[in-house]
Amino acid sequence: MNQSQIQSQGVAVDSGSITADFNPLDRIVVVLSHTSHPGNIGAAARAMKTMGLSTLRLVNPEVFPSDIATARAAGAADLLDSARMFSSLGAALADCVYVVGSSARGRDFAGEVCDARRACARLVETTHQGTVALVFGCEMSGLTNAEVGRCQTLAFVPANPDYSSLNLGSAVQVFGYELRMAAGLTRGFAAPEFQLATQAEIDAMFVHMREAMTDIGFFNPDNPRRLFPRLQRLFGRTRLEREEVDIFRGLFRAMQQKR
Amino acid sequence: MNQSQIQSQGVAVDSGSITADFNPLDRIVVVLSHTSHPGNIGAAARAMKTMGLSTLRLVNPEVFPSDIATARAAGAADLLDSARMFSSLGAALADCVYVVGSSARGRDFAGEVCDARRACARLVETTHQGTVALVFGCEMSGLTNAEVGRCQTLAFVPANPDYSSLNLGSAVQVFGYELRMAAGLTRGFAAPEFQLATQAEIDAMFVHMREAMTDIGFFNPDNPRRLFPRLQRLFGRTRLEREEVDIFRGLFRAMQQKR
Repeated sequence: MNQSQIQSQGVAVDSGSITADFNPLDRIVVVLSHTSHPGNIGAAARAMKTMGLSTLRLVNPEVFPSDIATARAAGAADLLDSARMFSSLGAALADCVYVVGSSARGRDFAGEVCDARRACARLVETTHQGTVALVFGCEMSGLTNAEVGRCQTLAFVPANPDYSSLNLGSAVQVFGYELRMAAGLTRGFAAPEFQLATQAEIDAMFVHMREAMTDIGFFNPDNPRRLFPRLQRLFGRTRLEREEVDIFRGLFRAMQQKR
Repeated sequence: MNQSQIQSQGVAVDSGSITADFNPLDRIVVVLSHTSHPGNIGAAARAMKTMGLSTLRLVNPEVFPSDIATARAAGAADLLDSARMFSSLGAALADCVYVVGSSARGRDFAGEVCDARRACARLVETTHQGTVALVFGCEMSGLTNAEVGRCQTLAFVPANPDYSSLNLGSAVQVFGYELRMAAGLTRGFAAPEFQLATQAEIDAMFVHMREAMTDIGFFNPDNPRRLFPRLQRLFGRTRLEREEVDIFRGLFRAMQQKR
């Protein structure tokens, strides 16, 4: 995203602190606190990298570094190599101006609570004011009360109340996806371009269709019933391409010659 | 979601075919075609169940059933037990009125291409007309051209162009999440309710603050500078609760007694 794109979106850009190629995702750190299983750290790294997140911080992981983490990270092992380790969540968040905690359940928390979509929009907005953090607690028990106390917002992924057990990698994937969407990095591949038919070409096709269907005795102009309104409804739903109109014109010619 | 909720959202309900407790997610089938690794089938089942999806169809999986799949599914093994097996994608889609294929790359496809959010909205809308399907191809190569030909829409998860390698479970998690969001099942836990302060209580707090700060010599009414506008900005950003106002009033009383 370049400077002009950012400005065209109406986002205030402080040119003193933000470079021309500012990418909000570069200002979002993912913090995993007290992760039990190294495989989950690897899965989180992979999920992060697929969504364009690159900064991972680890607070007292049970096992790290680990071959299991590296294997699960697949092509995202570079995020594990550059991950920074901290002995407390406070230290991991020291430079952050806004902190969102991922939580699957309510708790004694007086701050803002919202879904992942809203929280990720706020994280992305706040990158214009500094580094922001998204924190995930231990797999089994989630964030501790002391950790929750360091968050300004708690965010949840809406889930099946009877089985809300997203694993850590899946939770990071969903939040990462929402961060990428919120950052406007929504491009994927595009459909191939086809030349749409003009209304005049479509009108001529219907005239020809009517002639051909009359010629072969399928359509009776003296008793039209609802045939053409139905056919117009059908073709109206598709957006006809020029090549498709040509195919039908060929079919109608063949019907007329057959007679 | 009950009937009245559906109607209040402006969705046309055919009471002949849709029961009072219609849940769009019950009409969405997830089809995994030619999956190589049974662990991925288990991960997909777990992701589905967390998002409230329950119908899994498998087309020629390489290994299934499998203890590996069951282990990865964790609490979603019931989805594996009820999964139906098919020998062709056509058979798996026979009863479906709308089919979306998940694809990470462009290909020779003349139909609609869009992102996961839009595709999931269309899937949920179309559940009111019948069963709809979301199809995932083989992990390594994705959907074949023949499989793509059975889809009305191809959908992508926007991803890092340098590393777009979501694993199958992650892709199912993101699509499942978007389906749940599109179905309006967005509830999570709520913040505890606190009694917000009234404007009169806040005004009285500021009067008291001014007195106390004047009494201790911190504020000089003859040279106010920008102190109170700044403090008003700070407290304006928070939505003050009654209990918090009481805390401050106590503090100001203590400041005045100290003098």
